[in-house]
Amino acid sequence: MNMIDAGQPASQEAKETALVVFTPSGRRGRFAMGTPLLQAARSLGVDVDSVCGGRSICGRCQVEIGSGQFAKHGIESRAGHASEAGMAELRYAEKRGLKPGRRLSCQTLIQGDLVVDVPAESQVHKQVVRKDAEHRIIEVDPAVKLYYVEVREPDMHDPSGDLRRLEEALAEQWGITGLDCDLRVVQRLQKALRGPGASGGGEGAWTCTVAVREQRVKRLLAVWPGFRDKIYGLAYDIGSTTIACHLCDIETGEVVASGGAMNPQIRFGEDLMSRVSYIMMNPGGDKALTEAVRGALNDLAAHVTAQAGLEVEDVLEVTLVGNPIMHHLVLGIDPIELGGAPFALATDQAINIWATEIDLRIHPNARVYVLPCIAGHVGADTAAVILSEEPHKSDDLRLIVDVGTNAEIVLGNRHRLLACSSPTGPAFEGAQISSGQRAAPGAIERVRVDRVTLEPRFRVIGSDLWSDDDGFAEAVRRTGVTGICGSGIIEVLAEMFLAGIITQDGVIDGAMAARSERVVPDGRTFSYVLYKDAERELRVTQNDIRAIQLAKAALYAGVRLLMDKLGVDQVDRITLAGAFGSHIDVKYAMVLGLIPDCDLTKVVAGGNAAGTGARIALVNRSARAEIEQIVRRVEKIETAVEPMFQQHFVEAMALPHKTAAFPNLAAVVDLPAPKVSDGGDGEGGRRRRRRG
Amino acid sequence: MNMIDAGQPASQEAKETALVVFTPSGRRGRFAMGTPLLQAARSLGVDVDSVCGGRSICGRCQVEIGSGQFAKHGIESRAGHASEAGMAELRYAEKRGLKPGRRLSCQTLIQGDLVVDVPAESQVHKQVVRKDAEHRIIEVDPAVKLYYVEVREPDMHDPSGDLRRLEEALAEQWGITGLDCDLRVVQRLQKALRGPGASGGGEGAWTCTVAVREQRVKRLLAVWPGFRDKIYGLAYDIGSTTIACHLCDIETGEVVASGGAMNPQIRFGEDLMSRVSYIMMNPGGDKALTEAVRGALNDLAAHVTAQAGLEVEDVLEVTLVGNPIMHHLVLGIDPIELGGAPFALATDQAINIWATEIDLRIHPNARVYVLPCIAGHVGADTAAVILSEEPHKSDDLRLIVDVGTNAEIVLGNRHRLLACSSPTGPAFEGAQISSGQRAAPGAIERVRVDRVTLEPRFRVIGSDLWSDDDGFAEAVRRTGVTGICGSGIIEVLAEMFLAGIITQDGVIDGAMAARSERVVPDGRTFSYVLYKDAERELRVTQNDIRAIQLAKAALYAGVRLLMDKLGVDQVDRITLAGAFGSHIDVKYAMVLGLIPDCDLTKVVAGGNAAGTGARIALVNRSARAEIEQIVRRVEKIETAVEPMFQQHFVEAMALPHKTAAFPNLAAVVDLPAPKVSDGGDGEGGRRRRRRG
Repeated sequence: MNMIDAGQPASQEAKETALVVFTPSGRRGRFAMGTPLLQAARSLGVDVDSVCGGRSICGRCQVEIGSGQFAKHGIESRAGHASEAGMAELRYAEKRGLKPGRRLSCQTLIQGDLVVDVPAESQVHKQVVRKDAEHRIIEVDPAVKLYYVEVREPDMHDPSGDLRRLEEALAEQWGITGLDCDLRVVQRLQKALRGPGASGGGEGAWTCTVAVREQRVKRLLAVWPGFRDKIYGLAYDIGSTTIACHLCDIETGEVVASGGAMNPQIRFGEDLMSRVSYIMMNPGGDKALTEAVRGALNDLAAHVTAQAGLEVEDVLEVTLVGNPIMHHLVLGIDPIELGGAPFALATDQAINIWATEIDLRIHPNARVYVLPCIAGHVGADTAAVILSEEPHKSDDLRLIVDVGTNAEIVLGNRHRLLACSSPTGPAFEGAQISSGQRAAPGAIERVRVDRVTLEPRFRVIGSDLWSDDDGFAEAVRRTGVTGICGSGIIEVLAEMFLAGIITQDGVIDGAMAARSERVVPDGRTFSYVLYKDAERELRVTQNDIRAIQLAKAALYAGVRLLMDKLGVDQVDRITLAGAFGSHIDVKYAMVLGLIPDCDLTKVVAGGNAAGTGARIALVNRSARAEIEQIVRRVEKIETAVEPMFQQHFVEAMALPHKTAAFPNLAAVVDLPAPKVSDGGDGEGGRRRRRRG
Repeated sequence: MNMIDAGQPASQEAKETALVVFTPSGRRGRFAMGTPLLQAARSLGVDVDSVCGGRSICGRCQVEIGSGQFAKHGIESRAGHASEAGMAELRYAEKRGLKPGRRLSCQTLIQGDLVVDVPAESQVHKQVVRKDAEHRIIEVDPAVKLYYVEVREPDMHDPSGDLRRLEEALAEQWGITGLDCDLRVVQRLQKALRGPGASGGGEGAWTCTVAVREQRVKRLLAVWPGFRDKIYGLAYDIGSTTIACHLCDIETGEVVASGGAMNPQIRFGEDLMSRVSYIMMNPGGDKALTEAVRGALNDLAAHVTAQAGLEVEDVLEVTLVGNPIMHHLVLGIDPIELGGAPFALATDQAINIWATEIDLRIHPNARVYVLPCIAGHVGADTAAVILSEEPHKSDDLRLIVDVGTNAEIVLGNRHRLLACSSPTGPAFEGAQISSGQRAAPGAIERVRVDRVTLEPRFRVIGSDLWSDDDGFAEAVRRTGVTGICGSGIIEVLAEMFLAGIITQDGVIDGAMAARSERVVPDGRTFSYVLYKDAERELRVTQNDIRAIQLAKAALYAGVRLLMDKLGVDQVDRITLAGAFGSHIDVKYAMVLGLIPDCDLTKVVAGGNAAGTGARIALVNRSARAEIEQIVRRVEKIETAVEPMFQQHFVEAMALPHKTAAFPNLAAVVDLPAPKVSDGGDGEGGRRRRRRG
C-alpha cells in the first residue's frame, strides 16, 4: 500500500496513481491522476447512479469526500485531493442546489488518495424505508430506467435510421445492447431527437432521454427530447370493496401520492359470488364489470397524478394485485369458472402486458405487471402479502391474515408455506351490522364496558377524548356520533363478552337486563344500547353478533385448517393485514377468537400488506422473479372441499372458541367463565325448534 | 447391416428390430418392431409434419411404403412389413381421403424392413414452386405453426391455471417450452378448452389447437377448440400507385387468393414528393394519409379472404413491404424527414408489431413483420426485391430494376451489393402520356412500325390478333381501341425510333411528314397518329416522348451511377421487375435505353419481385434473418447528391444513349444511324432560345 505523508497532497509529478476507497461498500482501487470519480466507482462496480451519463445534468452521482486520516483504510483523504468544482458543476449547484460537502462525482477528478462516501440516494439499488407500520426496508431495482444520450446526427453519405443511431449511442454511452423497440417510440423518435424546433432543432436537439424496460427482453419504452430525470409508476390493490392506489417515483421508490376509491362493481353485487352470479345470469355481464373496474383505475390514476402535479402520461409502469375474481375481471377474463368447482383460473402465472391492453389511459407505452395468482380462491393479493411480509424468510412459524370480504390466510416459515382463502363475508367491513359505518369522523372506534355497571365509554374518529371525558360533547359536536366502524364493532363485542353480557355461544344474556337499562328486549332477542342521543340510537343487536360470529368462525376455521395441514397447535407470530386488520386492537380480535391464541406481543397489524407487495413489485424487478418462484411452492388448501372445514367452523362460532384453549390471552385478559345461554346455540336454534 | 431374405417378411419372433430407410433424406435406423413410423422418423430427425401429434386427425404425416428390393439401401421393403390400417386410419381415409399407397405414419407400425418415402407435402420445410415468371423455389419455414394438444382437466386438489396445464401439454406432447402468451389468448382460453358446451364440454372438450409464433421469443398467439389445420397470412406490397396483396396458406406457402387496389393516398398527391408536400402544408395530414393506406389494407384483407371463403380472423401473420415513405406512413410515422436532406429514416430496421398497432382488422393477435429499409430513398420494397432475386448469391454481376413511380435499382453479386432509387416519375405507369391508360382490355400493348411505309400495326389487350389480321375489327368490337398502356408506349416509341420517325435526341422528325400522313404537325411540333376511328384518335406527341425520355434518363442515370461506383462498364444479367417492368418487351426497353446494353438472352422480366419478397418473408422465418443481414451490407447511393448524376442524366436523354455503345443490341436490332434534329436538343431547346 502506498502511504502518503500527512497533510501533503499527492503530487501529480511524483506519483502517477492514487488510492481511492468508496464507502459504504469498502471497494478500493488505484487510479491514474485525473480519473473522474464516477468512472473510478463504476470500474470497481461501486453502485453510483447517473441518468445523464456524466454530463453534470442529473445530479444523481453525488458523493462526499472524506477529510482526515482513515486508519481503517490506511489513507489520508482531503478535499484538496480532488479537483475543484469546474464551470459545469458550479452551474449545476446554482441551478439545482448542492448540499455542503457534496460533489458531482462525474465532474470530480482524482488528484490524490481519497475516501469517498456514496450516500444512499446516489445508489441505484437504494433502500427506502417503508412508512407504514413495520418500517420494512424496500430495495429499489426498477424494471424501467432512464438514460440520457447524445445521438449522432444523420449523414446523407452514411444513411442510417434515427433508431439505429440512438441504439449506437446507448451502446457507446451506456453499454446497453440488444434492444427491442415499441413502434410508438419510433413514431415519436424523429421529433424527440430534433428538439422542439423540428427541422433545425433548438436547444436539446440530438440529445434525448429514453426509458428502457428490462423484463425478459430489453425494450425501448419511451423517448423524450433533452434531459428528463423522473419516471413514475402506479401500484394498485384491487379489492372487492375498495381499490387502493399508490403513485411512486420508480427510481427512488418513494410514494408521491396515494388514493383510494370504492370498487364500482359493487353495484353488480356486494360480494364476489354475487358478482359472479350476475355474470352467469346476464350474458356479457363480465364486460360491464371489467369496464367498471378499469374506469375506476383510470379515475384513480388521474386523481393521484393530479395530486402530485403530474400528468397521467408520466406513468410508465403499473403493478396490479387483487383476488382471483378481481384479477380476471380487470384483465378481461370471464371469471365464471371461478364460481364453481374445480375453481380453475385461466392462468395462475404473472402477466406482463401493455397498459393499453386493459384500457389504462397513462403513457401509451406503459407496461403492466400483474402478480401471479396461487389458486382459484387465493389470488395475486395473497402473493403480494407474501412478498410484503416474507414468511418464507422466517424461522418463526408465521400466520398472516388479510381480512376483507374474503380472508386470505398464509401460514408457514422458510420450510413450508400454506395458503387458503375463507369467505368471511362483508361483516368485518361494517356491512350487515345494524349500526355499522365506514371508518370516518363520527364513527365509534374504541369501546370499553364497565364490568360491574355494564356502562360503556367510547371514542370516535376525529377526537382523542373518551365519551366520559370532560369536553367530549363539545369535541364531537361537528361530526356527531354516527355509527360503529369495523374496529369499534370488534371492541364492543369483545367488551360485552368480557363483561358477561354475551355468552360464550354469542347470545345476549337477557338476564342482564335486570342489571342494566342498556340491555333491552328487541323482538325475540335482546340488544345492547351503546349510544343514544336526540337524533339516533346505536344498538348492538343479536343479528350483529351473529354476523360477526359467522365471519370470525370462517376466518378461524381457515386458519385451523392450515394448522392441521402443517400439524401444529400454535403459531409463533401473527400479522393482521388489510385495512380492517390493521386498525383493530389485536387483543380484542383474539378475545373474539378471530385468530388463535398467541403471545400478544407477537401479534401485530401489518398494514395494507397487499398494497405494499404491489409497491415492492413496482420498484423492484427481482422481487417479481422472487414471488413467481415462491407462489409455486405454496401449498394451496381449498376450504370448500375440506371435510374438516365445517366442523372447525361450527366449533369456532363460540367465543373465543368452543374447544381451543387461549392460555396466552388468559394471562393478560380476565376471560369470563364459560356461560352458555339456555338455548344452547342461541336465538337461531330456538327459532328453528319453534318452527320445526 | 442386417440383410433379410428376399420376399420373407421379418418375423417378430426371430428378430426384434427392423431396418428402416427414409427417402429422400436417406436417413436410416433400426427400430423395435411395433414402433410407429412417425416416431421412428422423428428420432432420426427426418422432416415429417404433424399438427395433431400422432392422433390420426391432421393427415399431415402421410408416407409411402416402398415395395421391392432396394439394392441401394440393401433392403427388401414390402407393404406387409408395415401394420395394416387400423380403425383410426380407416376413419381418416373415409372422412378426408387418402391417396392409394399413402399411409398415416403415426398409425403405421414397423413390422419389418422398410423403405419409406416422405412426399414433399408431408415435410415441414417443404418447398413450393413459385408460379410467376422465374419459377423460383420458396422454402417454407413459417414463424407461426399449429399444434394440436390434449390438455389435462383441472383438479381442485392440485389447482393450476388452464394456461399452465396447456403449457404442460405443449411441453409433453410437442417439446415446446418457455412460451410467452398474449393476454387475448388467456381471455379466450377457458371457453376454447371447455368446448362449445362451456361448463360440461361437448366433443372436443379439453383438446385444442394453438398457434405458436417463434420470432426472438416463443409466444402463444391463438387458441381454438378442438382440431384446426390451416392458418393464413397476408403479404402486402404497398406501392405509391397500387397496393398488391397475396393471401397465403402459411404452412404450405401456397397463394390461395390475390388482390390489388389503387393506393387511396393518390388523392393527396400523384407521386411521393407531392404527398410529403401535402403533409408539410397540412398539419396532421400524415394521419389522413396513414388512415387512407390502412383502410386500403383492410379492404384488401376482407376482399382476398372472402375470395378464398375465409374470415379475416383466419389471418395470423402479415408481411409488409413498401418504399420508405409508404413504409413510414403505414406505420404511422411522419415521413417529412424523408422529404429533404439528409433523408433520415425513423428506423431502417425490420419491425415486429401487432396488427392492431396499425389498425389491421384481422385476427386480433396477428403479428406484422415489416421488412427492413435500406436508406432514405431505398425502402423495404428493395429489400424484398433482393430477397426474391437473390443477387447476393450470384456469381454473375446482376442488375435488378424495379420500375414504378420510383425506380429501385440494385447492382451486384455475391461480393458487393449496391442500391439506389431514382425518381422516374409516373410516365412509365401511363400518367403524363396523352393517350396513356392502364393495362386493361382495349389498350394497345404491342406495336410494329413498317420501316418503309411508316404504317403501324398493333395488338390490344383482350385479343391475339394484330390490327392488320383478318377479323381484328370484329375481335375488338366489344372493347374498342381505347388507349396505350405502359408496354405499348415503350414499343411504339422504340419502333418509331427504329423506323427513323424519332431522332436520336427524341424529336419527331417533321421531314417524315412528307413520307407518311401519320406524321402530322401538332402546334410547334409533330405527332404520330397511331390509331384513328370515328370516336377517337390515339396520337404519340412530342410531349409523350419527352416524358418517357425524362423517366428513362433518370432510370439509366441511376444504373450508370451504380456501375461507376462498382467500376464496371457492363453487367452480366438484367432483371426488370415490377408490374410495368415485367410486361414490357426487354428488347424495346433496351432500344430506348432504359437499361444498359446486355446479352438480350440474359435480360428477363422478374415479375412483382417486391411482392414475391414479401411472400417469402411471410412463409419463411429464416428469410427474415437473412434479409436483415444482407441489407446491412448493401452500399447505398443517394442519387440526389451525386455530382455525376446530372451528367449521366443528360447523356441518357438520347436514344438509346448519347455516348454508350450497345453492341449486344446492335447484333439483333438494326439501330438507325445517328440522326439529330436541327434543333439540337429538340423543341424545348428551341423554345428556350426563342424566349431567351
